[in-house]
Amino acid sequence: MSEPAANPAPPPAEPPVDAGEEGASTSKKAAKKAEAKAKKEAEKARRAAERAAAMAAQSSAAATEDLATENYGDETPETKLSTDAIDIHLKTLGEEHVGKKVQLRGWIQNSRMQGAKMVFVEIREEGNWTIQGIAAASPEGTPVGRQMVKWIGAVNLESFVIVEATVEKPLEPVKSCRVSDFEIHITKFFVHAAAPAVLGMTLAAANRPIANFSDEEVPVEEGVEKLSLAATSEPAGIPAATMLTHLDNIVLHKRAPIQQAIADIRVEVKDLFRSYLKERGFKEFEPPCLIGAASEGGANVFRLPYFGTEAFLAQSPQFYKQMEIAGGRKRVFSIGPVFRAENSNTPRHMTEFTGLDLEMETTRGYHEALHMLEGVLLHIFRGLKERCAAEIELVRSVYPSEEFLLPEPGKEVRLTFAEGQKLLREEGPEEFRNVSDDEDMSTPQEKALGALVRKKYGVDFYVLDKFPETARPFYAKLDPSNPRVCNAYDFMIGQEILSGGQRIHDPVELEARMRQKGVDPSSPGLKEYVDIFRQAGCPAHSGGGIGLDRVVSWYLGLPSVHLAAYYPRTPKRLAP
Amino acid sequence: MSEPAANPAPPPAEPPVDAGEEGASTSKKAAKKAEAKAKKEAEKARRAAERAAAMAAQSSAAATEDLATENYGDETPETKLSTDAIDIHLKTLGEEHVGKKVQLRGWIQNSRMQGAKMVFVEIREEGNWTIQGIAAASPEGTPVGRQMVKWIGAVNLESFVIVEATVEKPLEPVKSCRVSDFEIHITKFFVHAAAPAVLGMTLAAANRPIANFSDEEVPVEEGVEKLSLAATSEPAGIPAATMLTHLDNIVLHKRAPIQQAIADIRVEVKDLFRSYLKERGFKEFEPPCLIGAASEGGANVFRLPYFGTEAFLAQSPQFYKQMEIAGGRKRVFSIGPVFRAENSNTPRHMTEFTGLDLEMETTRGYHEALHMLEGVLLHIFRGLKERCAAEIELVRSVYPSEEFLLPEPGKEVRLTFAEGQKLLREEGPEEFRNVSDDEDMSTPQEKALGALVRKKYGVDFYVLDKFPETARPFYAKLDPSNPRVCNAYDFMIGQEILSGGQRIHDPVELEARMRQKGVDPSSPGLKEYVDIFRQAGCPAHSGGGIGLDRVVSWYLGLPSVHLAAYYPRTPKRLAP
Repeated sequence: MSEPAANPAPPPAEPPVDAGEEGASTSKKAAKKAEAKAKKEAEKARRAAERAAAMAAQSSAAATEDLATENYGDETPETKLSTDAIDIHLKTLGEEHVGKKVQLRGWIQNSRMQGAKMVFVEIREEGNWTIQGIAAASPEGTPVGRQMVKWIGAVNLESFVIVEATVEKPLEPVKSCRVSDFEIHITKFFVHAAAPAVLGMTLAAANRPIANFSDEEVPVEEGVEKLSLAATSEPAGIPAATMLTHLDNIVLHKRAPIQQAIADIRVEVKDLFRSYLKERGFKEFEPPCLIGAASEGGANVFRLPYFGTEAFLAQSPQFYKQMEIAGGRKRVFSIGPVFRAENSNTPRHMTEFTGLDLEMETTRGYHEALHMLEGVLLHIFRGLKERCAAEIELVRSVYPSEEFLLPEPGKEVRLTFAEGQKLLREEGPEEFRNVSDDEDMSTPQEKALGALVRKKYGVDFYVLDKFPETARPFYAKLDPSNPRVCNAYDFMIGQEILSGGQRIHDPVELEARMRQKGVDPSSPGLKEYVDIFRQAGCPAHSGGGIGLDRVVSWYLGLPSVHLAAYYPRTPKRLAP
Repeated sequence: MSEPAANPAPPPAEPPVDAGEEGASTSKKAAKKAEAKAKKEAEKARRAAERAAAMAAQSSAAATEDLATENYGDETPETKLSTDAIDIHLKTLGEEHVGKKVQLRGWIQNSRMQGAKMVFVEIREEGNWTIQGIAAASPEGTPVGRQMVKWIGAVNLESFVIVEATVEKPLEPVKSCRVSDFEIHITKFFVHAAAPAVLGMTLAAANRPIANFSDEEVPVEEGVEKLSLAATSEPAGIPAATMLTHLDNIVLHKRAPIQQAIADIRVEVKDLFRSYLKERGFKEFEPPCLIGAASEGGANVFRLPYFGTEAFLAQSPQFYKQMEIAGGRKRVFSIGPVFRAENSNTPRHMTEFTGLDLEMETTRGYHEALHMLEGVLLHIFRGLKERCAAEIELVRSVYPSEEFLLPEPGKEVRLTFAEGQKLLREEGPEEFRNVSDDEDMSTPQEKALGALVRKKYGVDFYVLDKFPETARPFYAKLDPSNPRVCNAYDFMIGQEILSGGQRIHDPVELEARMRQKGVDPSSPGLKEYVDIFRQAGCPAHSGGGIGLDRVVSWYLGLPSVHLAAYYPRTPKRLAP
């Protein structure tokens, strides 16, 4: 093939969409309007670009014979690909590929005609890897003719294509692509799966901050946060879409680099959790989702008909973790779905989410479990910094957030609940001047305390221990030296991400405590629970449960846990 | 302390239960009777042993002053343990501990008085680790007195105890314990959590083959298998219990070494699956359990009320895996629960089970996925042999099974469905002389073919490819060269453990195929499914789903998949 100009002007980094005048807004109406406008603009721009490309090509193409029909088109069973081309992946592209004939499969992220004889196409692979491709018609007409250039320029964005090309070094780095040191000179170009001419949401929009979580009743506080966020990050000119538009266009939502980065971070959290615990003798197990009794009180539990009786969806694996300990395991953990039938439409709630849970026999007191949980969370946070630096940076480029502050090893911040309340009373906002040591914290209190701890200790992660007995369920072990509090803790990153403590393992003590709490030990589910400790001797044990979606979204400063989930489930949304 | 005889007669390997006359039986009545008798016998024997021990001790104890009350008893907040004792775990006990003062926590598996002055106790830790402990009253009366010996001998089996002792080498290996090269000479003995005097099921019974899966309607075939199994493995004299007794005594069920071995193997299967795929670029993801439409036809799906509308429990992650591929992932896998509201009470069915699923973009045809699935399963089977040899042996000691035959690398057995049917017609049992190439296989056919393949190729694992189009759902891709079959496969180990194939990725082709199959492409759930491929171009992809419970139980030759589950869910059972 004849060489195209070695370093032509790179295509613009974003598709040519007119900058929207309207920013994101938390008001539903405004968001809808902005979105409708964005769609219209995107469509208009796309059509204009197509028209321009087609016209430019047409003007001269008519004169040129198309000698290269075998080299482009929609892929069919007759499509012939070279057998001697090397399969490449952009992530591993290197100097050794320069000058070689390669084959690449990916999505067209962007394309731009340069006159009638040349087209630039940006091709994307998984994980935000992009490269610049160039197809230039050679005067001799083969292998690339003007018809082929024109045809490539008209392929819809986000179509999946198969490209054969030669790898070349551009004169200057291609700034618009993640692979900036190489470009590919296209010799064959087939559409394997076409996208529609007008996408429901452009990739650029999908990679913008969500404009509005319109199926959430946004509490004032969060609303303010998001408003300021939207205000600071709107200037790029790509109108943002609402969460509903994202979910209605799940394919584009998932293709957005930010969503892939969040998903990669989420997987890493699970892997770090698992590997840390396995090294310390923990056994993974699988608690059931379907259970026979609403053992945790019956509030907010999903019920379903089950072969003539009723089943429930588990709200936590707590009782099953304890059964594993009674059943002879020293240390267990589980990673799996849990369910809450709570009609809370907020950025903190989902009806199905993933729990990271552990439980362990303790020999010298429940702090062994507290330290284990602290250890695994610090391992996760430090591990993310190391292993997911690029992904975290990508997320921050869309949702700006401050550096997450971790304690130095040995300088972990552990306060008692009473110490936390004292801090709030003495140094917190006016409205918390009278908080009690015997009442649970509210979310605003948690946030205020988080801010105080960050200021005072320079950390975003800390532990609150010795919760008041009034704030914990019947199974929480009372502190023998102060029965107004429990051997129970919460872990905080701004807000609570983990709750845990020591459980009562003696059946007589457990029943007595149930009665104290006004719980009937003979009620369905609870009788069987107490019996676990009667069947045979069970050692003292403690544990905790971490909300994976909350850890991921709050660590990253995302405006909603829904963004951390693969397929968020809310009271108003069960699809996709 | 004064040294007891260095190698006294070891206690019997099993508690002193009279050998039951009745073996296990598949008849409900007989099983119930056997079980009732077993319980009675166990109780009788236990009481007799206690009486004997108490009497032996009493006869001389009255004369001896108890100088060691600080060294034994029920653990209380006042209990004083030595601060200079080394914490040991039986798994890592070694020569370096000999002569050292140690502390051990575990369950009393067995105990036996030897006259009034000595007691043998077998103490167990997680994973079937046991050690012999000896407490002998010294003439000087301290630290171990006769009262203490008597007290230790009367502690109920399966109580959780804390023991301080000196590690010694026995003159001869202690054959009844897994730790045979060391024993411990007890100086302190505290009961941390007591078991009841009469257990609902003894540990020995819990470790026997299940006598009867009485909530299953056992098909004749399986019934025969189990009967012969029970007949061959009954002689140990410990009556077996039914599955219902096991589940009603979940703590003892789980403490049985066989159940811990099965659970360890199950975890290893998941870990081998995950690590193999991660190394090959697969990303883990989490499909939802709650879905908005019964997208796979609506049969056998659990339904539940959901905030004024209806939700369903996912029967497979299939559509979500495809969404991940359409959403820009090359390769994905998931490990999680799936649900079937099928009223099948057989050893092959559960209402909740764990799916190991993968899906991948293919570039040179769907066999890439077939080979990947074959690769991961062979990796699992070979990995189990290596990593879980002891656990497999333990399982086989309870449920005897033949060596699992794997193909040599490069000699994998892959038959087309038509080749399989031909083999059945030509070499199979009489009743399969007329099986058709256009109809799906029944379970008896699968089993017969498995036997033929074992005989002919010497393998227990093989692949059946190119299933008839009549036997596959609408989303299965037809073979372009023979539209009577699909690019779809099953993997077999005796019976089907995996089903998969290429999916149609073109929305027009998909809708046409739906109509051919009599499925309405505009019905709820399906419209959204087709739209996935319309939102933007999706590459060709294939995958498959593995039933984890079936892989584990059939690989191990267990009589029911219920034994492979942590908490089996059947139409008749939702607890524990």
